[in-house]
This record gives sequence, C-alpha cells and structure tokens, in this order.
Amino acid sequence: MTQLLRVQNFTVSNDGIAAGENQTLDNPFGLDHSGMFEWAVGTAGWPNRTDPGGSRGIDDYFTRDFSHNIGAEIMGRHKFAPKGGPWPNDEWQGWWGDEPPFHTPVFVLTHHPRPSLTLSDTTFHFLGGEPADVLDRARDAADGKDVRLGGGVTTIRQFLDADLVDTLHIAVTPFDFGSGLHLWESPDELNDRFHHDVVPSPSGVTHHLFWRK
Amino acid sequence: MTQLLRVQNFTVSNDGIAAGENQTLDNPFGLDHSGMFEWAVGTAGWPNRTDPGGSRGIDDYFTRDFSHNIGAEIMGRHKFAPKGGPWPNDEWQGWWGDEPPFHTPVFVLTHHPRPSLTLSDTTFHFLGGEPADVLDRARDAADGKDVRLGGGVTTIRQFLDADLVDTLHIAVTPFDFGSGLHLWESPDELNDRFHHDVVPSPSGVTHHLFWRK
Repeated sequence: MTQLLRVQNFTVSNDGIAAGENQTLDNPFGLDHSGMFEWAVGTAGWPNRTDPGGSRGIDDYFTRDFSHNIGAEIMGRHKFAPKGGPWPNDEWQGWWGDEPPFHTPVFVLTHHPRPSLTLSDTTFHFLGGEPADVLDRARDAADGKDVRLGGGVTTIRQFLDADLVDTLHIAVTPFDFGSGLHLWESPDELNDRFHHDVVPSPSGVTHHLFWRK
Repeated sequence: MTQLLRVQNFTVSNDGIAAGENQTLDNPFGLDHSGMFEWAVGTAGWPNRTDPGGSRGIDDYFTRDFSHNIGAEIMGRHKFAPKGGPWPNDEWQGWWGDEPPFHTPVFVLTHHPRPSLTLSDTTFHFLGGEPADVLDRARDAADGKDVRLGGGVTTIRQFLDADLVDTLHIAVTPFDFGSGLHLWESPDELNDRFHHDVVPSPSGVTHHLFWRK
C-alpha cells in the first residue's frame, strides 16, 4: 500500500508567508499572526478543541482530516522549539503540554542529537540526515499509514525541493504580511508537478489542494 | 460523546431529484443517472475503488470521509433491494456482492422481518419502527461512533422530518432530471434549522454542507 507524504492544514498569508524571521518563545511564529488560524480553531475537528461545539462546514473537513490515516509526523526544529543550535538541556518538551495533538511518532529534524521524548501517546525522535532518509524512518514507524509533513515552512520547502511530497493542503488567509518566510510567491508555482484545486471557504480562507500528476 | 447522525456523499440533480419513481433490478435508481456519480468514482477515496489511482482534490475529501468515525448505517428498504413488500425468500443479499463497502452494522428499514445477514465485515439487520427508535438501535451498535444515514431519498426526508439529522453533505450535479423523487425544491429549505456552506468543485458538482444551528 502506498504511504503518502501529506502536508495538511498549513496556513500562509495571501502573500505566501508562513512565519516571520524572528521566532521567540513568546512569539512562535515570529510575526503578528492573530486571525491567521481562526478558520481552523472554530471547527469541530480542530485537534486542540476541548469543548464539544464548533462548525461542521467545509473548513471542518480539513481539520478533521488532520489525523485520518496518519501514522507519523515529520517536523522541523523550529516547529518543536524556539531556538536552533545545541540543546542546552533536555528540559524543553515542545509547545503542546502533556498531551500533544499528534498521537503518533514525531520525527524532529535537528543536527543536534537528543534522547527520544514520550508525552502521552506521542513520542518525539530527534534526527538529522537527508529528507529521503528521514522519510524512510517515518514510513517505517507509521505502520503502513501515511506520514504528515508538519512544517514549518523551511521544512516543507526542503521536502518539496527533494520532490518527496505527495499531497498538500494549504489554507491561504486574506491577510498580507509583507515580509517573512515564504512558502511560495504564487500557488501556481507547483502546477507543473501537481494537480491543483482551489476551494474558497465562506470563512474567508481559500483552500489550495495539490496532488501529484 | 455525541454520536451524530450524518448524511454523506448523497447526490441529487440540479433540480433536487435523487431517484426516479420506477426502480428496477436493472435500474436501481429508476432513472438515467449516467454521469451523476462521476464526481465520486474518480476520487482516490471512493469506497468501491479497487485500483490505486484517483484524484485527491476537494471531491476526495468527501469520499474519504465516508467511513471516518462511522460505526453503523441506517438505510431504506429501497437502497437494499429493488422491490418492497414481503420478502419472497432470503436470497437477495443487496447490490454489493460479497464485500459490501459499509464494514459496520447496517440497519435496513422494512415492515417485513427477515433474519440478519452477514457478508464479510458488514451485518445487515432488518427492522421497522419509528425513526427515533431505529436511531437508538443504530447508536447502540455504533460503539460510540457516529451513524451514517445512507438514503435513499425517502429515508432521508423521513429522518429530516423527525428532526434527527445532525449533518448533511449533499452533492448537487449540474443535470436536471425533471421528474422523480425530490430531496428538496431548493437547498435553502434547510436554512432555518442548519448552517449551510456552499462549495463549488472543479469537477462541476456543488457540495452543500449542513450542520445544526
């Protein structure tokens, strides 16, 4: 059975920016991202939702698909921690508290080794290497299921450059950020390699769906 | 945990018709429905797909959601068999061969009792009664998961009239049929009770999503 590498619910601004250049502990995205994730947090399927409500329209199809047939995640160092470089110690355990929303093995890309870390039913592994090798490790761990490529933007570009991504769901918000780390100049950049559906949502975001030609 | 009653991937014509009035063994929908399900059969997630291909755009989000968190289905007699009335014998085993695409208990509405029937991991139960009672039975069998209301159109209208439906996904094709069994005169009929998202797909169908206010 094919194990896809899938990008899901990754949100960028109207001008293609996913993060600022100055990430800090207080500001994990390195820019004023207020409103950027509103389309997702209001849905019934939002993985961090703790109360029963939420919308069940088109945006909810995307948030509830987050874990569907996913057996592992790959994420960049900057999605896991606010700073790069050697780990000062093993105290930092990610942004998500004792119950991370992944519920699978997670492979964190880093040049700096660190022991694996288990929080509830999520285990973080820390490893370096080429994208293709990391993907092999994640596929082995995914037990026949797909692998989510969780971002950040640098990691997604790295795996796109290596032509390892099978499907992408990118939510484009109506805001412009002006400067920051770009996923793309235009979504149409991917059209040579991917089919591309454009789906406007009543919430104001536009969902872009890509799958390999 | 809330167990929703969900209508999914139910397809109607542009004029709201889901089936003709003269269902036969050779023509389960009772009308010329060629092209009506093209939006779904081309997707990777189509439950009856046997080969690995298929599109992974917006239509695929709907077909692959078919089984997501579903623990039972309720269907009308006319979805299961071409004729109403007493069962002549127990030979008829549905339209789906030895591997029905449901993989859960299925509750078939009929006034005429018949022993339960197991095919692979699907078991059909045959029962009459009020919609609310049938839904109670299905929820018990669904083991905490949601219940799919599988149609046909008469059954969906019956459960809508009893105000038991929590969410609906209806795909509206661009064809007019002129006469037949109507789900609605207009999708906006449901707007008093449901939120309503309208999502055009590049395949030509328009997805209508409803969830309770």
